[in-house]
Amino acid sequence: MTDPAAHRPRVVIIGGGFGGLHAARALRRAEVDVTLIDRSNFHLFQPLLYQVATGGLSPANIAAPLRAVLRRQKNARVLQAEVTGFDLERRRVLIAGGEVEYDYLIVAAGSTHSYFGHDDWSLHAPGLKSIDDATEIRAQVLSAFERAELCEDPAERARLLTFVIVGAGPTGVEMAGALSELSRYTLRGEFRSINPADARIVLVDASPRVLSVYPPELSAKAARFLDEKGVEVQNGVRVTQVTATHVELDAPTGPERIESETIIWAAGVAASPLARRLADAAGLEVDRAGRIPIGDDLTIAGHDNVMVIGDMACFAGKDGHPLPGVAPVAIQQGKHAARRIQNLQAGDATPPFKYHDMGSMATIGRSAAVVSMGRLKFAGFFAWVMWLFVHLMQLVNFQNRLLVLTQWAWSYVTRNRSARLITRTDHHASEQAAELQESSAG
Amino acid sequence: MTDPAAHRPRVVIIGGGFGGLHAARALRRAEVDVTLIDRSNFHLFQPLLYQVATGGLSPANIAAPLRAVLRRQKNARVLQAEVTGFDLERRRVLIAGGEVEYDYLIVAAGSTHSYFGHDDWSLHAPGLKSIDDATEIRAQVLSAFERAELCEDPAERARLLTFVIVGAGPTGVEMAGALSELSRYTLRGEFRSINPADARIVLVDASPRVLSVYPPELSAKAARFLDEKGVEVQNGVRVTQVTATHVELDAPTGPERIESETIIWAAGVAASPLARRLADAAGLEVDRAGRIPIGDDLTIAGHDNVMVIGDMACFAGKDGHPLPGVAPVAIQQGKHAARRIQNLQAGDATPPFKYHDMGSMATIGRSAAVVSMGRLKFAGFFAWVMWLFVHLMQLVNFQNRLLVLTQWAWSYVTRNRSARLITRTDHHASEQAAELQESSAG
Repeated sequence: MTDPAAHRPRVVIIGGGFGGLHAARALRRAEVDVTLIDRSNFHLFQPLLYQVATGGLSPANIAAPLRAVLRRQKNARVLQAEVTGFDLERRRVLIAGGEVEYDYLIVAAGSTHSYFGHDDWSLHAPGLKSIDDATEIRAQVLSAFERAELCEDPAERARLLTFVIVGAGPTGVEMAGALSELSRYTLRGEFRSINPADARIVLVDASPRVLSVYPPELSAKAARFLDEKGVEVQNGVRVTQVTATHVELDAPTGPERIESETIIWAAGVAASPLARRLADAAGLEVDRAGRIPIGDDLTIAGHDNVMVIGDMACFAGKDGHPLPGVAPVAIQQGKHAARRIQNLQAGDATPPFKYHDMGSMATIGRSAAVVSMGRLKFAGFFAWVMWLFVHLMQLVNFQNRLLVLTQWAWSYVTRNRSARLITRTDHHASEQAAELQESSAG
Repeated sequence: MTDPAAHRPRVVIIGGGFGGLHAARALRRAEVDVTLIDRSNFHLFQPLLYQVATGGLSPANIAAPLRAVLRRQKNARVLQAEVTGFDLERRRVLIAGGEVEYDYLIVAAGSTHSYFGHDDWSLHAPGLKSIDDATEIRAQVLSAFERAELCEDPAERARLLTFVIVGAGPTGVEMAGALSELSRYTLRGEFRSINPADARIVLVDASPRVLSVYPPELSAKAARFLDEKGVEVQNGVRVTQVTATHVELDAPTGPERIESETIIWAAGVAASPLARRLADAAGLEVDRAGRIPIGDDLTIAGHDNVMVIGDMACFAGKDGHPLPGVAPVAIQQGKHAARRIQNLQAGDATPPFKYHDMGSMATIGRSAAVVSMGRLKFAGFFAWVMWLFVHLMQLVNFQNRLLVLTQWAWSYVTRNRSARLITRTDHHASEQAAELQESSAG
């Protein structure tokens, strides 16, 4: 497809995550005008979000302002805006209070939590997708310890010190490992009425093993690491109810109920709601996870100038299964989409997209990780060092890398976690403030 | 006063700010049981809060978890709780859902904003006292630039790029200087439709000069620094109205109106509402700023085991004026209160509290500060280095110091500000999210 208009082709990218940002960067030498639209003003390094949720890192350590990242790329501009819809006929993206014209569109709005039809559970079991999620979970976790210290009823104290993580994929496993270290090491000696190490950390999953998409031997290693860290793993367990005070499970041994103040949702993921809007606009159907099917040129059916990449896209891999919603898929698709646009400009063909699986890794805390790279599978300290190195190197801009390194080096020596702030302005706090104000005014 | 009971005297300290925390630390070798109660779980280094509000530092850089600070002090415990009142007869502090007994009480709950009877202004002109205030202001400031970039109406764009700071004390001056650097240097080259350096920064104050409590020659120097940084200073100006879209002023030349999206309140300070509760419980009156009068032993009239220190206390200085609400006063009073308790235990007398004024300093951004120490008054680069050094050394725990130093060193070289996140979950964002969810469900 060549562009009929006289102007430089306009490439609009929705989403400044891994896919969108890499697409924008890959177009830096192209004769196009790039507009990157995101509802946030920063790129988020999601793989380390659980470190924010457990006080190991500050939000700014894992977030790079999009404008700073693209400052020197003169063919790119950034708009912080909420996309509300698509006009594929007129080639426009609708945003709150306006619209943005495109010649090529790359949609990379990522994914959100899915509570499998139980959206009310989200009130009691926050997921871990955004900075706000992470600081909310951090506040909940730390407040649970604080309230336990004040509490004199043993049953309630035990409930406050019970943490249930639903979903034993990489996020759930990493979260469980970090919570274990928080309670066993970081908080040691800081309380007078409770022993934070008494915290019960339960990791539940419907599948028969943790990290179920990893090779079985690595799942076994991960399960052993979790056990060593005092995490209670329950496999083959479905969640049937989540409330403010407990979670109900359907376990192999029958129904079970765990009294818990803090329930963290690391189970379900669904494509951004924008996927359905785009599908509606194009007369397409989304799959069960809300993703849009794309062809091997990453375009959607009937619109060869509209590409969808990353977590929002359903792209059949070699084995027929859709590619997983992980950063490397999004990055490779982002780069491929950029290359395809440049080839179209030059009148060259682009080979179909192929995913190069570089392997996967997950960490279960300090010195313990599992790595799977093709036939190479290993676990333990060296895997952890590799996990650390890969993640540090991937962090987008240099400052973040330096700061994260400093903070981690320090944490490593001291087992300290410095970013332990309860900053949530929750209902309870606002009410108290209002009450105080009233009484001071009266 | 000696303690009649057999138990170790219980010292309850309300507030983990400069006064409360220094009192607790000073009691580390005393034969007492210390309970520090704070509504937050961290000590906040307030003098650097404006750096968080302008993206130069992360919240965790200037906040130290109280439990971590007092971990090794075995005679101290920390309770995160909201104090609701006092029972001075029964010597109890009332907290949500319970009470805490004391033999000695040190009340150091600090201060809050005062809008001089216009509490509705707080909606449109946030103050700068807490981490939540700072991240809220950071989000407002950054969003104003983002919205200006999207805006096509020149008048509205100018309004979005106008920042009004009310109050030219140290906080207002520092905030104005930091906003200038943000717009002139940090954001340079990051926008395509606007020039961030076009931002208009207006600093208004009712008094005839900036930093009115400083020596006049330093006020003049500060005014010159502000002028060099492009800050528009308006002195002798009273604010008569604050709305969502503009501010109205009563200026020497007549009434004035400034269209502005972002108005920051750095003017009025009032004692924590707890001061009035304590005064009511003791049958005392608070002063115009809501502070409790204390004697030269820091106690309140009629209760020689109850001391009030820091911003909440009205202590007449040498010149008859109350001591200012600054960290050194709180720190010295905190240490004095601790010493008095130890002397009472030992049966020794304690000389009356005397404030040793070490001087004051304020910074107007990179390389520009003013310092006043007794007869010594100086301004410029060396003052700035001194400001930096003093503030770094004061940061409570080592990790914060190291990280802050790293981040500042980096900012100094690059003029970058990395902690530029819009993380506020404001009404607008929540509404949009709800709307998206609805439409995706429908």
